Amino acid sequence: MLGNTFGRIFRITTCGESYGIGKGSGLSVIVDGVPPGLNIPLEYIQNDLDKRRPGQSPLDSPRKETDQVALFAGVAQDGVTTGAPLGLIIYNVDTQDIHIDQYRDYKDLVRPGHAEYCFFLKYGEAGDWCGAGRASGRETVGRVAGGSVAKFILEREGIEILGYTKESAGVTAKEMSFEEIKKNYRKNDINCPDLEAAKKMREGILKIKDMGDTAGGVVEIVAHNIPAGLGEPVFDKLNATIAHGLMSIGAVKGIEFGVGFRCGSMKGSEFNDHPYLDQGKVRFKTNNAGGFLGGISNGEDIVVRIAVKPTPTVSVEQPSINMVTMTEEKLSPITRRDATICGRIYPVAEAMIAAAILDALYLARAYDALAKLDDKWMKLKAPKKSS
Amino acid sequence: MLGNTFGRIFRITTCGESYGIGKGSGLSVIVDGVPPGLNIPLEYIQNDLDKRRPGQSPLDSPRKETDQVALFAGVAQDGVTTGAPLGLIIYNVDTQDIHIDQYRDYKDLVRPGHAEYCFFLKYGEAGDWCGAGRASGRETVGRVAGGSVAKFILEREGIEILGYTKESAGVTAKEMSFEEIKKNYRKNDINCPDLEAAKKMREGILKIKDMGDTAGGVVEIVAHNIPAGLGEPVFDKLNATIAHGLMSIGAVKGIEFGVGFRCGSMKGSEFNDHPYLDQGKVRFKTNNAGGFLGGISNGEDIVVRIAVKPTPTVSVEQPSINMVTMTEEKLSPITRRDATICGRIYPVAEAMIAAAILDALYLARAYDALAKLDDKWMKLKAPKKSS
Amino acid sequence: MLGNTFGRIFRITTCGESYGIGKGSGLSVIVDGVPPGLNIPLEYIQNDLDKRRPGQSPLDSPRKETDQVALFAGVAQDGVTTGAPLGLIIYNVDTQDIHIDQYRDYKDLVRPGHAEYCFFLKYGEAGDWCGAGRASGRETVGRVAGGSVAKFILEREGIEILGYTKESAGVTAKEMSFEEIKKNYRKNDINCPDLEAAKKMREGILKIKDMGDTAGGVVEIVAHNIPAGLGEPVFDKLNATIAHGLMSIGAVKGIEFGVGFRCGSMKGSEFNDHPYLDQGKVRFKTNNAGGFLGGISNGEDIVVRIAVKPTPTVSVEQPSINMVTMTEEKLSPITRRDATICGRIYPVAEAMIAAAILDALYLARAYDALAKLDDKWMKLKAPKKSS
Amino acid sequence: MLGNTFGRIFRITTCGESYGIGKGSGLSVIVDGVPPGLNIPLEYIQNDLDKRRPGQSPLDSPRKETDQVALFAGVAQDGVTTGAPLGLIIYNVDTQDIHIDQYRDYKDLVRPGHAEYCFFLKYGEAGDWCGAGRASGRETVGRVAGGSVAKFILEREGIEILGYTKESAGVTAKEMSFEEIKKNYRKNDINCPDLEAAKKMREGILKIKDMGDTAGGVVEIVAHNIPAGLGEPVFDKLNATIAHGLMSIGAVKGIEFGVGFRCGSMKGSEFNDHPYLDQGKVRFKTNNAGGFLGGISNGEDIVVRIAVKPTPTVSVEQPSINMVTMTEEKLSPITRRDATICGRIYPVAEAMIAAAILDALYLARAYDALAKLDDKWMKLKAPKKSS
Repeated sequence: MLGNTFGRIFRITTCGESYGIGKGSGLSVIVDGVPPGLNIPLEYIQNDLDKRRPGQSPLDSPRKETDQVALFAGVAQDGVTTGAPLGLIIYNVDTQDIHIDQYRDYKDLVRPGHAEYCFFLKYGEAGDWCGAGRASGRETVGRVAGGSVAKFILEREGIEILGYTKESAGVTAKEMSFEEIKKNYRKNDINCPDLEAAKKMREGILKIKDMGDTAGGVVEIVAHNIPAGLGEPVFDKLNATIAHGLMSIGAVKGIEFGVGFRCGSMKGSEFNDHPYLDQGKVRFKTNNAGGFLGGISNGEDIVVRIAVKPTPTVSVEQPSINMVTMTEEKLSPITRRDATICGRIYPVAEAMIAAAILDALYLARAYDALAKLDDKWMKLKAPKKSS
Repeated sequence: MLGNTFGRIFRITTCGESYGIGKGSGLSVIVDGVPPGLNIPLEYIQNDLDKRRPGQSPLDSPRKETDQVALFAGVAQDGVTTGAPLGLIIYNVDTQDIHIDQYRDYKDLVRPGHAEYCFFLKYGEAGDWCGAGRASGRETVGRVAGGSVAKFILEREGIEILGYTKESAGVTAKEMSFEEIKKNYRKNDINCPDLEAAKKMREGILKIKDMGDTAGGVVEIVAHNIPAGLGEPVFDKLNATIAHGLMSIGAVKGIEFGVGFRCGSMKGSEFNDHPYLDQGKVRFKTNNAGGFLGGISNGEDIVVRIAVKPTPTVSVEQPSINMVTMTEEKLSPITRRDATICGRIYPVAEAMIAAAILDALYLARAYDALAKLDDKWMKLKAPKKSS
Repeated sequence: MLGNTFGRIFRITTCGESYGIGKGSGLSVIVDGVPPGLNIPLEYIQNDLDKRRPGQSPLDSPRKETDQVALFAGVAQDGVTTGAPLGLIIYNVDTQDIHIDQYRDYKDLVRPGHAEYCFFLKYGEAGDWCGAGRASGRETVGRVAGGSVAKFILEREGIEILGYTKESAGVTAKEMSFEEIKKNYRKNDINCPDLEAAKKMREGILKIKDMGDTAGGVVEIVAHNIPAGLGEPVFDKLNATIAHGLMSIGAVKGIEFGVGFRCGSMKGSEFNDHPYLDQGKVRFKTNNAGGFLGGISNGEDIVVRIAVKPTPTVSVEQPSINMVTMTEEKLSPITRRDATICGRIYPVAEAMIAAAILDALYLARAYDALAKLDDKWMKLKAPKKSS
Repeated sequence: MLGNTFGRIFRITTCGESYGIGKGSGLSVIVDGVPPGLNIPLEYIQNDLDKRRPGQSPLDSPRKETDQVALFAGVAQDGVTTGAPLGLIIYNVDTQDIHIDQYRDYKDLVRPGHAEYCFFLKYGEAGDWCGAGRASGRETVGRVAGGSVAKFILEREGIEILGYTKESAGVTAKEMSFEEIKKNYRKNDINCPDLEAAKKMREGILKIKDMGDTAGGVVEIVAHNIPAGLGEPVFDKLNATIAHGLMSIGAVKGIEFGVGFRCGSMKGSEFNDHPYLDQGKVRFKTNNAGGFLGGISNGEDIVVRIAVKPTPTVSVEQPSINMVTMTEEKLSPITRRDATICGRIYPVAEAMIAAAILDALYLARAYDALAKLDDKWMKLKAPKKSS
């Protein structure tokens, strides 16, 4: 397996899987690019991990994991970061044989919507059949822990990142300002800050759950107070690296910024965000572009939505194939499942966006710092005042 | 500027801008990871470049560029690749002072929907004001040339990649099979293989053009005959690297695979693609997932759609800001423009997808080759036949 | 801090420091690019860790660390690798306050030959003053554990890597064949397989130790049974990536392949290794080049030597500077130290070389696999037999 | 072929080979990470290219190449850098059939000391047999052009990099200060600033040449006025990335910093460089470490030496193997050759060091810039003055 690292300067490298070797197994993240002198409370990271922890609501899988994070590297005797990479570990707890036995029962079967057929092709029978291995949602524990560090650093810069459920079970939340989203963030188990919509979503999802089925949705993430100028103009546009990070989350099937797919039916004069001066600063009257111009942040909020597929595990009999015998079989209904992951996926999305933004911030400052060595250019760069 | 390279093993590195230094300026791509022994006709690459060349239709900008590609490195005396990186160069032709003068007129102005404000922040007045520099659509010449090499190599594997306009000016093309798309590929200047829809789209776009405005759209790209097993399970899922590549194209505001955003309102039992055996091979009855399971190709066609924003240059007066004097001004209507880029962006999307797929193919084979060293594992890996 | 990852496909990412937060602190390595289906005994890795463990001989620092490695990710219930990244952790044991207090005494002082002045510049007072942090020799624990996995995989390919002390305390070991080196590998605490020389080296080093001083040396590493064709022709020559890896070990001040610096006074006709046919295979009569042609392995043993500086911690008073008060001070003699690290550095060098070779092997196979798709080229590639 | 890019932020990507397709063939470099606003005279780059150009002295190969560089991307109408990647191209001139015919004569033969056997293994018969392709010294044209840009940027920071021949034909230059080296830099065709030694070296080399043979040597490069704090503590130590860059030059067989291999026979108390205060700045009384502590620059000159092997092309009959027929043959003496490349390799070494240092400078500033966001740390970081 390759590709367990995300980022260029701020980098997270993760390992660990759903069950692994059972006792003693865990998930870990090494976080490179952390500044020295930070006092990151473990509770801060734990809080982000708690957002994605299952077993907290009737909408979730009943799997019980405490997801307690421990920090074993990168801080000094006084608990302050030294600049060295952080090492964080979360040991698996719910590794009872009873669940592993259930996985063993259908380990050779293709479960519709799950990745084991592709894993079988890549890793053979030696691949991890137990709880989906690295294809499990449990893999995201490392992302959340690592991204939480990025969020902590960004908050010191005044940058805030909030995700919430925009749409599920046919219900769509109303338009809300960043402040409104923030006010009712995490006020309910579907994490929809439009409380009326939340109620209806919840009812809709539970109805679907009762039918033995699962619900998808759309999650919107807003990054607030972003400095203009982040991102590189060609392949590494900031919206491209954010898209990379978000699309690498298992359940995501689509990504759009600003008005997104609606832009396809808009005219240029409608879509263009018009600039104006706000206390000497360039701002834009609308944010159809979702915070970007040419892939570089323009100072407006970054607004991105992800399409979240319904959880594939359903309590309905489905067609399957036994990969070892290569025969068609039936997969029995499975009871332990998430009714939707919309209420638990947002911390993962927040983590990936935070990591991408912080990485871009480092690169922007690297380039700025060097560019500014040249006095002549410095002079030019500072926007001249009108005389 | 950073981030002018895309890919890990199959890599393209580009440079060049819209006008650059004027005479003698050009765009170039270095293509790493090309196998030896290939006879890639220059006409093959030229053909892809011609797809994106402006000035060929009333839908396009009238800029005249011949975009003639020359190959200066990576092949032997007999024209066959040696395994060394290819060097391709396309010199700018349309560098008349008359156009540069036009750009000079509004070089300090923010053009709505364009990137110069962000460039000004990053590169100051020394940045390239002429024709948008690396933020220009012209930058994509290098992508197309490099991606064309990837397409050529993939075609030898039987993999074909086709893009077409799915939606524009309020008209949506009907559902078509890969063969239907292929049959009418590039049959009209909006490149919509549903010929009825194409006619209506064209009319709608020209009407918008006459109003001094521009149209957006949705472009779908289908990659056919993809081997199952490409992509890495965590951060470098193949759909994630494809999303990275596509979102790095200037005009793209959204990306979705398979049913995409529609998945948000589907139930798990509806969304799941069910497997069956087709002549001893695992196939799926539907392709809601767009060719992926857990971010790894599952053998079905990769189906991806991009939201293309309307070209920002419009013949309508717009509010602006002079970045040097920091005063609000008006931007006059601009006449030389594309009515839409839907009919010219598809080769860029094809190029990025081809590059991402070939890169994943290399990585898959690297890993396979090593994994297969282990006899025991080899034996396991081959799916056992039922007795 | 950046740069805690080594490799492109086979990659090790490490974290952890000498003392860290004290209790609960540890060192960890995430190993990406491990094939599935391997049964890597923990004892194998532990054995490599034991080679570098201090406190085993009068030549070493008396620090007591058990360096017990635990595997928490990447293997299945049966202990076999799944293809997922391995997660290995080694908790610190010797974290008694008594030693930390000693470090606290001179935490603001520049210790000659140590890195804290540079760390102070980069990380300020928040940097890790305790036991040298990531600049400590203890950092290499992660390298050895990760590199051990590479060695295990390479051994299945028949590739063996052995390091030994070639020179120390003015004594030089005689020329030995790979078999001779192997026979007496690790037979003494200076790890010199020329047993006569070993005895003299040991005496010399202990004499230097008695003077309160330390000894340097030269360590040679031989990689045996290497396939020809590894390495990339330009920037990523295999000898270049090996040099990168070896020079990243703290104590290394020089690297040479084959005859190394002696080549400067040789003539071309003397230096050139002449080819001959050995049972239909190309071999070379001499190995002045140390196993490389144009940076690509030529099938002969890779022979590389590293210059190991004498341990900087000495029991002699030395000039120093207090970095906080910026005053000149004296650094008192320090007693807890290694007389030389020649007898403990070879597993680190073996690890880095193993990681570099395995990474090159993956890349070679990635490229081969793709190149071989082309039948025509395949035919050409197989060296034709004479008729 | 992979690995045609060097660097992380300041990156050079090269292509091109010795003869390539003949007419129209060339070498190119794309330089990423160039600040905007620089007026880099083409003459500056040309001057560096002229240093390595053959055919200028009896010590060189008589091949006639003008190596005229053209800049086609990355600068604006006024010739000033825009921040976009630079595109530089150097067309091949000396592509007469007469020389290509000579190469054709022995295209299937292993030439001792050359790389074609390894190329044959990797790229088959389709590989480039003509003039050694990317294994040719001619490949270094792209490095020199790209590295020259780095040197230009570094010089604005006050950093100077000079290489010279330290040793050849049994003659060693005396110890010289940076100023002395600079004074007599490029004063003779062996580029040895010790003019007495230069004369003797030259005589010795010409004597070896008359015997139909070639000479090696040792080249020392000194980087002056380096800020302390460059390089990352673990795998990407600055001396490690410099070693990577230098060892990737074809003829280099060894690298050493400071006293280098001599450290193996020194005691710790001798080797340690002792700090002192010089006008409030930390300096070191000696520079045995060659400018590094823990792989991070310590503010002293970076001093590195490379072992340069004698050119493999000799006018002496040598054993060979025909790779196609797999039979032992004889390789006839070859007349067109360099008597030594010591007098032409130093600009390549300067280029690689410049690229590595500038890249580290970017990374250091990226990290610094972010670290400094934290006021508390800022305060700590500034070394406190004694009261």
